[in-house]
Amino acid sequence: MSLNAILTRIDDDLPASLDRLMTLLRIPSISTDPAYDDDVQRAAQWVADDLATLGVDAEIRPTTGHPMVVGHVGEGAPHLLYYGHYDVQPVDPLDLWTNDPFDPRIEDTAKGKVIRGRGANDDKGQMMTFIEACRAWKAVTGKWPCKVTFLFEGEEECGSPSLIPFLEANSDELSAPDIALITDTSRFDADTPAITTMLRGLLGEELIITGPNVDLHSGGYGGPAINPIRVLADIIDALHDDQGRVTVPDFYDGVPEISDEIMAQWNALGFDDAAFLRDVGLSLPAGEKGRSVLEMLWSRPTCEVNGIIGGYTGDGFKTVLPSQARAKISFRLVGTQDPHKIRIAFREMVRAKLPPDCSIDFKDHGASPASIMATDDPAFEKARNALSDEWPNPAAFIGSGGSIPIAGHFKEILNIDTMLIGYGLEDDGLHSPNEKYDLRSFHQGARSWARVLDALTK
Amino acid sequence: MSLNAILTRIDDDLPASLDRLMTLLRIPSISTDPAYDDDVQRAAQWVADDLATLGVDAEIRPTTGHPMVVGHVGEGAPHLLYYGHYDVQPVDPLDLWTNDPFDPRIEDTAKGKVIRGRGANDDKGQMMTFIEACRAWKAVTGKWPCKVTFLFEGEEECGSPSLIPFLEANSDELSAPDIALITDTSRFDADTPAITTMLRGLLGEELIITGPNVDLHSGGYGGPAINPIRVLADIIDALHDDQGRVTVPDFYDGVPEISDEIMAQWNALGFDDAAFLRDVGLSLPAGEKGRSVLEMLWSRPTCEVNGIIGGYTGDGFKTVLPSQARAKISFRLVGTQDPHKIRIAFREMVRAKLPPDCSIDFKDHGASPASIMATDDPAFEKARNALSDEWPNPAAFIGSGGSIPIAGHFKEILNIDTMLIGYGLEDDGLHSPNEKYDLRSFHQGARSWARVLDALTK
Repeated sequence: MSLNAILTRIDDDLPASLDRLMTLLRIPSISTDPAYDDDVQRAAQWVADDLATLGVDAEIRPTTGHPMVVGHVGEGAPHLLYYGHYDVQPVDPLDLWTNDPFDPRIEDTAKGKVIRGRGANDDKGQMMTFIEACRAWKAVTGKWPCKVTFLFEGEEECGSPSLIPFLEANSDELSAPDIALITDTSRFDADTPAITTMLRGLLGEELIITGPNVDLHSGGYGGPAINPIRVLADIIDALHDDQGRVTVPDFYDGVPEISDEIMAQWNALGFDDAAFLRDVGLSLPAGEKGRSVLEMLWSRPTCEVNGIIGGYTGDGFKTVLPSQARAKISFRLVGTQDPHKIRIAFREMVRAKLPPDCSIDFKDHGASPASIMATDDPAFEKARNALSDEWPNPAAFIGSGGSIPIAGHFKEILNIDTMLIGYGLEDDGLHSPNEKYDLRSFHQGARSWARVLDALTK
Repeated sequence: MSLNAILTRIDDDLPASLDRLMTLLRIPSISTDPAYDDDVQRAAQWVADDLATLGVDAEIRPTTGHPMVVGHVGEGAPHLLYYGHYDVQPVDPLDLWTNDPFDPRIEDTAKGKVIRGRGANDDKGQMMTFIEACRAWKAVTGKWPCKVTFLFEGEEECGSPSLIPFLEANSDELSAPDIALITDTSRFDADTPAITTMLRGLLGEELIITGPNVDLHSGGYGGPAINPIRVLADIIDALHDDQGRVTVPDFYDGVPEISDEIMAQWNALGFDDAAFLRDVGLSLPAGEKGRSVLEMLWSRPTCEVNGIIGGYTGDGFKTVLPSQARAKISFRLVGTQDPHKIRIAFREMVRAKLPPDCSIDFKDHGASPASIMATDDPAFEKARNALSDEWPNPAAFIGSGGSIPIAGHFKEILNIDTMLIGYGLEDDGLHSPNEKYDLRSFHQGARSWARVLDALTK
């Protein structure tokens, strides 16, 4: 049977597959930092070149930011749109890495072999599982399983500024596929594959508060001069009430309570709150009182401070009373929460809290609503069965605390539903030092895609 | 008369005096940053070499940190201890400087010529006024006005960690003088010289709060995982009440109300609150409600955040939920406030506010109580008259918001009173970008010291 031959081919080709992934991981394609612009371009070129070896007419398409890689290949139904992103997160704090984040290693750990490096999971390792499945399919059968359109982005980690204009400008070309596939999510646990059917939205804001027009000496001015760090701390403190709820006016408009049926499914997964927290050095759930960890992650909105800086932050001490303080703040959104309304309400609330003599600038770091997938499409059940064949436990439909705005954009702009199948694990350290991807995630990920492609094209 | 000849000599020698100061200013002796250790050493050597040209047996004395420069010279009463510091503050943010902070310039401004560069005032420009006065005295009279012991420190801007041990280890040598002189304060205004008789103390603390044991993805953990930036903001916000008072328990123990007599003197100075604030872009006094600006600066304690950092602070956005957040916090102290008791109360208060799953580390960045000078010593009245002869307005006894812990140490360890006479102005930008020292401050500062030396030795 052809599927078994393809799976065997994936097994046999694993060393070469890993070599290819390592080459891609060595390119520091950090999209948020202009210092790495050339590397982002190099990563796009590598992806296009690799696709070309498989007969894809891959092109690097310019945008006003980092380019897209687009390609078409194959014949037959269904027509799939495969999306991935070849850019990665910054790597600071660099001193917490056990190896150079762009000199990836295969490491033996207590839980098995892992691929260690920036992008090992997010998204280079994940997206290569699909490409390796297609490579094996073509090697064994001499053709592609069906018609596939590829779309690879280089700005996913910096808010995707070019994505919507690109989808709109190329909607004729990109709206033909029947369903989109993305590998940028996790399994439920090491033995349980998953299809992610609920994603939180994301709203990013940056605040720059200015008090005095110059940095001052805290001896010569401390007391009568307002301190923007204290103003910022006051604003941050006011963003939550004592129940852990976000205080932005009307923030909870559009936040649905989860149905008893879905809650029962989630409870049946046996998620271990204590173990989840223990893995990152914690013991008690923070956040909204009266909500379980899974409920908070998959179905509740949040407000987090992702960065803060002001005054003197070097070694030693400097008695400065700074002119400015700034923070990066993000909101995770669920249900039908409207990111644009929330941005306006947030800015109004902050401005209202601003004391006299302080001014504020806001920077918009993107906005996307939550996504809920079309699980009534038969493709979901086919994929669930295919995944269940590969892994020890049956596949689950799960939620995700993260945000993949692209799924919403595909629906809105291209009218295409998305199926999110990923092989990461919660301890992969996405966006953190020592990011990793289990060798098993990579290997069985590719095998899983072969099974799903087989199921979808039968 | 000899004094007039000395003053004329100072006038004639001004260009050469400036050349000497510029040479010292070009040495980037930033004491708080180990990258500049060699430069701090070079600055010590420059001071010792310059003193040697005046016949002082100057020595560089090692400490566990940056060295002291100690020298003795002259004969006759009173025996003066002159203290200055040859180290300077860091220069960030560098992009706000109009010139390289270590390539000093003489600039024409609307208010006259200024010397622009790091240390132009604090303390290189100020301390050189005394050395230049002595140089002129020796050039004209062939000798020193009296016995002088010099002590120059290289750690004043980083909390003076070696100072107390050095004073204690050398108290036999250093306790002989009758009075100490320091040039590290300001005139009251451009036309009014001042002797600073009250100084605030300083307590420096650094807090490092750890929540999760690794930086997390705010999508995968936002909600149930505690965010140390939010914890830190909450702590900072709780340090003041809505009246602007510091909430550390028993913080106001030892804070005296200013007597009607002193308050009347201060009111007579005609300090312009609005102009003071306007110069730095502000319009309303922050701080304790019901207190004037001068009262807050000279006689009220404060708590300020001097620096804060956590999470991602680079360009763009990163949805990290950080493991750590840190802040540098300082307290200005008055009266008989006990810095050690306040440190303990502060740490207890912070620990009590710490939520479960967070740990905290404190770093001690020094502690010194407030100083109140011995104005009943006749030297003060002699100096006040001498200063009044040099400047348009009579000299004033004033307070200062800043901290010069050395005055307290001289009293406690050496049993020597200190007289603080300085020539800076409030807009000199100490510890800020574009630090300056008016050419008039430098020139008439040297002339002022010649007059004070003449008055003290008569």
